[in-house]
Amino acid sequence: MNFGEASAVTPAGDGVWTAEVQPDWDIFGVSNGGYLMAIGARAMSGSSQGRRPVSLTAHFLRPLSAGPVEVAVARLKTGRTFSTLRATIAATSDSMALLGSFAEPGALRTEDLYVSARPPDLPPPEECPRALPAPDGPLPPPLVGQFEERIHPDDAGPFQGRPSGVGRVRGWFRLHDREPIDAFTLLLVADAFPPAVFNADLPLAWTPTLEMTTQVRAVPAEGWLRCRFSTRFVSGGLLEEDGEIWDESGRLVAISRQLALVPR
Amino acid sequence: MNFGEASAVTPAGDGVWTAEVQPDWDIFGVSNGGYLMAIGARAMSGSSQGRRPVSLTAHFLRPLSAGPVEVAVARLKTGRTFSTLRATIAATSDSMALLGSFAEPGALRTEDLYVSARPPDLPPPEECPRALPAPDGPLPPPLVGQFEERIHPDDAGPFQGRPSGVGRVRGWFRLHDREPIDAFTLLLVADAFPPAVFNADLPLAWTPTLEMTTQVRAVPAEGWLRCRFSTRFVSGGLLEEDGEIWDESGRLVAISRQLALVPR
Repeated sequence: MNFGEASAVTPAGDGVWTAEVQPDWDIFGVSNGGYLMAIGARAMSGSSQGRRPVSLTAHFLRPLSAGPVEVAVARLKTGRTFSTLRATIAATSDSMALLGSFAEPGALRTEDLYVSARPPDLPPPEECPRALPAPDGPLPPPLVGQFEERIHPDDAGPFQGRPSGVGRVRGWFRLHDREPIDAFTLLLVADAFPPAVFNADLPLAWTPTLEMTTQVRAVPAEGWLRCRFSTRFVSGGLLEEDGEIWDESGRLVAISRQLALVPR
Repeated sequence: MNFGEASAVTPAGDGVWTAEVQPDWDIFGVSNGGYLMAIGARAMSGSSQGRRPVSLTAHFLRPLSAGPVEVAVARLKTGRTFSTLRATIAATSDSMALLGSFAEPGALRTEDLYVSARPPDLPPPEECPRALPAPDGPLPPPLVGQFEERIHPDDAGPFQGRPSGVGRVRGWFRLHDREPIDAFTLLLVADAFPPAVFNADLPLAWTPTLEMTTQVRAVPAEGWLRCRFSTRFVSGGLLEEDGEIWDESGRLVAISRQLALVPR
């Protein structure tokens, strides 16, 4: 089952959509947040005549596992260019609350007017390891098998007990069988890499996400995505992870920020 | 009327709060988004037993002017440490949709565990100009009179027709009469500086905000705040502005990101 199928939604009337959260899109039983955001965004897009996500915020209420879910969408505003919608994803109880702006396809300017950053420098994918734990560590989470991901060798150390000391993870991403990457896929990509904070060399094993916002700028060109995720501030019991996703042609296609709890 | 008074809310029962959006907290008739977020956050805090905003996202539906508003708050989850709430601010119709996580005071760790960035270097406040337009330009917006703001001389050029060429604005902020700055004030500060994109030297006069997210890490120490706002990507018809707010002791107290439309 490819990503498009795994994140599909079916209309059930009155702004309600059903979906089947698939097994193996999880980290040890907890479904990936970016994957759930993609499911939510498909329902929100369906409730706005196919408009595309430009900014989507999700607050994580309760972990969700594989199984049927209901996405309830409410339209807050329908303008000429943008729709604002909110949604909740629920199994037995609400699991994720979403709020987002969706744009009419083709309605926005497309050119790059000002870009003051560059995509990450990465060795070729074949010289970058997959994000695997050490051979005697826990098994890789099933999620890792759902796409092709290659981590910059300098950032792949935490899984071998060698964090870089810098809160950063850079790497390549593409879907299996070169499935085309659309705006919904970018919501997944923004949450698909190992946490950048693992390279900061702190005694943290677990940093539950409270909230995540992804802003989509463009549909990527064909090929690998180049990604950079950074955590600069672990303070006040919280940490952010900022993401940049660039396509193989060197164009920025999405930025993201998530907020996670630093447990006591 | 100080900021605390200007952003006060009054309970009206059943999760509804009333407030009076004050005149002169606006840019040419449109009330400031950060100021409205502070009003919304006060209602959300009031609906969660005084919990404090840690992450608040607002989608801007319609401009609002001075006058009475209603804030309708719904609790999505009340946990031991965090509450997740959503709200809408409405005058005659919905103007702003909010979704946020609020934390129990004292429940989070307080120490800085990892900080890989530094506050902006700024000349002393008395050597930094206020954000005034050229003498023959339009009057300064009334908002500028509501607080003390000083712009880094290198970034103050757009108002004199000399943009720096870099999408950045750095400066100092404090409230009049040294009114203490709390988590609600930080929501205002994150939207209180002139747009960083004005320094990027693009033919843009107007960039309406679609969405803004502010994450609060700490209550600042007494004194001036040091602020840095940057726009790195003007592309796909959109631009982001990332903010960092540091206190006078050099501690990061909030980060923010807003998304604005680049008009055709």
